[in-house]
Amino acid sequence: MDNPTRPDDWEWPRHELIRWEIGLTAPATRAFPLVDGLPVGGPSVVIMAGPCSVESESQIMATARAVKAAGAAVLRGGAFKPRTSPHSFQGLGKAGLALLRQAGEAVGLPVVTEVMAHTDVDLVARHAQILQIGARSMQNYPLLHAVGETKSPVILKRGFAATVEEWLGAVEHIRARGNERIILCERGIRAVETATRFTLDINAVPLMHRLCDLPIIVDPSHATGRADLVPEVSRAAIAAGADGLLVEVHPQPALALSDGQQSLAIDQFADLVPSLRRVANAIGRNIP
Amino acid sequence: MDNPTRPDDWEWPRHELIRWEIGLTAPATRAFPLVDGLPVGGPSVVIMAGPCSVESESQIMATARAVKAAGAAVLRGGAFKPRTSPHSFQGLGKAGLALLRQAGEAVGLPVVTEVMAHTDVDLVARHAQILQIGARSMQNYPLLHAVGETKSPVILKRGFAATVEEWLGAVEHIRARGNERIILCERGIRAVETATRFTLDINAVPLMHRLCDLPIIVDPSHATGRADLVPEVSRAAIAAGADGLLVEVHPQPALALSDGQQSLAIDQFADLVPSLRRVANAIGRNIP
Amino acid sequence: MDNPTRPDDWEWPRHELIRWEIGLTAPATRAFPLVDGLPVGGPSVVIMAGPCSVESESQIMATARAVKAAGAAVLRGGAFKPRTSPHSFQGLGKAGLALLRQAGEAVGLPVVTEVMAHTDVDLVARHAQILQIGARSMQNYPLLHAVGETKSPVILKRGFAATVEEWLGAVEHIRARGNERIILCERGIRAVETATRFTLDINAVPLMHRLCDLPIIVDPSHATGRADLVPEVSRAAIAAGADGLLVEVHPQPALALSDGQQSLAIDQFADLVPSLRRVANAIGRNIP
Amino acid sequence: MDNPTRPDDWEWPRHELIRWEIGLTAPATRAFPLVDGLPVGGPSVVIMAGPCSVESESQIMATARAVKAAGAAVLRGGAFKPRTSPHSFQGLGKAGLALLRQAGEAVGLPVVTEVMAHTDVDLVARHAQILQIGARSMQNYPLLHAVGETKSPVILKRGFAATVEEWLGAVEHIRARGNERIILCERGIRAVETATRFTLDINAVPLMHRLCDLPIIVDPSHATGRADLVPEVSRAAIAAGADGLLVEVHPQPALALSDGQQSLAIDQFADLVPSLRRVANAIGRNIP
Repeated sequence: MDNPTRPDDWEWPRHELIRWEIGLTAPATRAFPLVDGLPVGGPSVVIMAGPCSVESESQIMATARAVKAAGAAVLRGGAFKPRTSPHSFQGLGKAGLALLRQAGEAVGLPVVTEVMAHTDVDLVARHAQILQIGARSMQNYPLLHAVGETKSPVILKRGFAATVEEWLGAVEHIRARGNERIILCERGIRAVETATRFTLDINAVPLMHRLCDLPIIVDPSHATGRADLVPEVSRAAIAAGADGLLVEVHPQPALALSDGQQSLAIDQFADLVPSLRRVANAIGRNIP
Repeated sequence: MDNPTRPDDWEWPRHELIRWEIGLTAPATRAFPLVDGLPVGGPSVVIMAGPCSVESESQIMATARAVKAAGAAVLRGGAFKPRTSPHSFQGLGKAGLALLRQAGEAVGLPVVTEVMAHTDVDLVARHAQILQIGARSMQNYPLLHAVGETKSPVILKRGFAATVEEWLGAVEHIRARGNERIILCERGIRAVETATRFTLDINAVPLMHRLCDLPIIVDPSHATGRADLVPEVSRAAIAAGADGLLVEVHPQPALALSDGQQSLAIDQFADLVPSLRRVANAIGRNIP
Repeated sequence: MDNPTRPDDWEWPRHELIRWEIGLTAPATRAFPLVDGLPVGGPSVVIMAGPCSVESESQIMATARAVKAAGAAVLRGGAFKPRTSPHSFQGLGKAGLALLRQAGEAVGLPVVTEVMAHTDVDLVARHAQILQIGARSMQNYPLLHAVGETKSPVILKRGFAATVEEWLGAVEHIRARGNERIILCERGIRAVETATRFTLDINAVPLMHRLCDLPIIVDPSHATGRADLVPEVSRAAIAAGADGLLVEVHPQPALALSDGQQSLAIDQFADLVPSLRRVANAIGRNIP
Repeated sequence: MDNPTRPDDWEWPRHELIRWEIGLTAPATRAFPLVDGLPVGGPSVVIMAGPCSVESESQIMATARAVKAAGAAVLRGGAFKPRTSPHSFQGLGKAGLALLRQAGEAVGLPVVTEVMAHTDVDLVARHAQILQIGARSMQNYPLLHAVGETKSPVILKRGFAATVEEWLGAVEHIRARGNERIILCERGIRAVETATRFTLDINAVPLMHRLCDLPIIVDPSHATGRADLVPEVSRAAIAAGADGLLVEVHPQPALALSDGQQSLAIDQFADLVPSLRRVANAIGRNIP
């Protein structure tokens, strides 16, 4: 029987196939710098952490200081928030971008934030060193083309029902415009289980390392929807070969304007990092 | 156990609940005109038909004449095509819009076409009486807001992994900007079955008639991915209470630049319509 | 990319391919008698109705009389009930079988009931003219082999995450033991939607008519989990070409020991049948 | 909106909730012996390995010696094989049981094998120290009841579309008959991704450690369907807290009668174990 789900008839680019040796030597993914001095895809695992949404100066500053102290290399925070309902908190927008940038500069961390509209790409790229395409936007082609025309590294989250072929198709939409600095992000797909928010497709980490030459990171917060599961799932992601993590951390999760139930408190995040480091070391990698 | 998949904490608008009587009286959905003299959501079932993509003047003109003759009330045709790969045919763009409009005017049918970018909404609305939001764009909020600010009827396709709550959330994003003329379109969701392209969620037709006051149409072409299944599935959709169909028809399916395997040939479409009419009549509706 | 989900390397039996003409002539499925004088798979659509569980003599007798009067041709009722929890009602077992048989004989309807254990096949076959394999048992091979060695017609429900290939594999397990009288039953699969209990795969009805020479019926009760959606979905199933329906009907749904929320009351079922008949007629079939 | 997918109305047993501390101290799951001197659920991670099917004396003996030498604590091997098609290899049955037992005794490893029919439970329990319920049998209640009446440890694989609630329901069906020695096995669920055979639900490992007091192991072979992904996924499973692994190993995968593409060769397995040990150590556990 034919499989009519194969999306289009096209030749996949012949990526250099990556062979991650069972012997756990240094990873063979093609590394590139997120910013000067911060490579992704090399031996070092990059921890990105911060709140779902930038809510206030004190909130983002407190988080920035804490995640930097705990070992994060990148500060995350949402300014433009895609929300199921228009009546939910939509993020602080431009004001949020400015607060995020200011916090990153204050503590010396590059920042990553989501861009939702192709017409906002230049604005966001002026405030953030790294651009994020959210799961709901993975097939927003005008947006992919716009980030493809920048020089910024792009975190491309997997759509929550996208196959790997569709995900690689989205990669190709960016690459075809000239931007090669793409970081895949597995953040959970929708499956039969509803006790967790999504189902983390851990298979996708080594699979993508076979299928293409891009780094891949994991978002354990969306993939579980439960802060209490984030530690084990984060360790699993690193053991599976993930090149980084994107973790939601909030000074007061119970008061968060979005995604509080899946955010780690600051001390929980600080407690987590040493165990991540031990797992990274066990497979021949490190967290600086 | 809590169900953490409920997307956001908000109050769903209290739509007037629709009770479609088992006795099969005239439908109770709130009807509105797509264009003058063409209501959707009333007793008449609206057949929309045409090619996946506008490919040439002769192709769209031949299709327009044929679907009009066979009983279609709206001409469909894609000009901006979202494609998994950037190397596939991307549609004729502006030129396609002009050809579509010209074909519609020539045969006297209003036209519907997809708009992919919020910055294209005005352009598309000048050429097409009805705007379509594709499945991949269901949560493209800048786009939803832009069509919400027009006066055009909007066909809102369901994302292929969207729950009905997320779909209603997208509706609300449009409505909150002032546009109430929204037509839902069920076009198949992704499930365990791979022998068909998607799985048509036929339950969603009566369910949406319970949950909100909007018309809902069905796209049997994407929902199956196989032209040979389109007739039975189209009849099923009407029997389930669908307020219309969106069917792919092409003069030469084997030569289509996109989606040929799921397109009906012109004579197949002409053969189909009488059976649709009989099913509509069986439940107290009609196809003019 | 290979599709590793193809279950096994084997040659599918070359069924006589069925072409259901768009012109809606009499169905071409190979009909066979369920009992003398009651064919399935021919022009007549077979309505099977009754309670999820046999609960008492008065309950099953009242239901039997009512569904017979309303137009059902087969009485259904569960005696051995597979339940997620061992602490839920497990059915009346042997006593239930006797009550079901007695009710069928009293009103003159053949009966169908589920058999869960291969060691119960002979017992159940002595009480019921038609055997049912439930969705959870679709790949219980000892059970499939046991019913394959009987002379009884077998309703084979699709597993709720089974592909059509796995379903046809289960068919072949029965056929290989000699029993050719198999009726497929689509009863909903698990998909992303959780607002309904399952997602009815309406595509599977015409697809199975293409892939094999077996009749296929639809269970709208499990497929929706909501009695209020059963009427529309039942009509859709018949319009899609289903050879029968398996509908849950209970004299007092609110008091049912299992599945009450998806059971029609007796008067709701009586109101439904005339509309089913009209839809059947619209496609050239009938309900006697 | 109600969630009608909640399977039944019953009170879940109030298991002692397990809190696995972020500090990575010794696991708190309730350990029990698989056989004398071999605890599962304690600090030691139990590696179970062997071929999908027992095929011959030389094949199972060679595998037994090799996996023992490499660090496995249990020998696995199928004698009764559930197969999608009746025309595929169905296992050696009783002869396979005898060969498996003999191989286990020869090298000093306990053995685990699947039991498919409730009438075979006594037979299988005479040959194997540990019983396995396969994914397709997770809701075969007569079988669950039969293993519940033995004294043997039971590996209960998750159905490939089962929710955790249904899985815990199956546990309860066994427990209610008196057998408390149950080991959960996550082996992948069906999701949107088809590039791998199934999608490993890594979230389920810590989730089940929260919801119940049972050990949980992971089957990376079925979960991926690709031998080349097994190493990373195995390491991820241990990092997530899995109490053991069930890995397919074959002396000549290319010649295997079943599941060859997902089986590790003997030297691949031997190379894998040291890395598993390092990951186990990184989270405060060990592989003896």
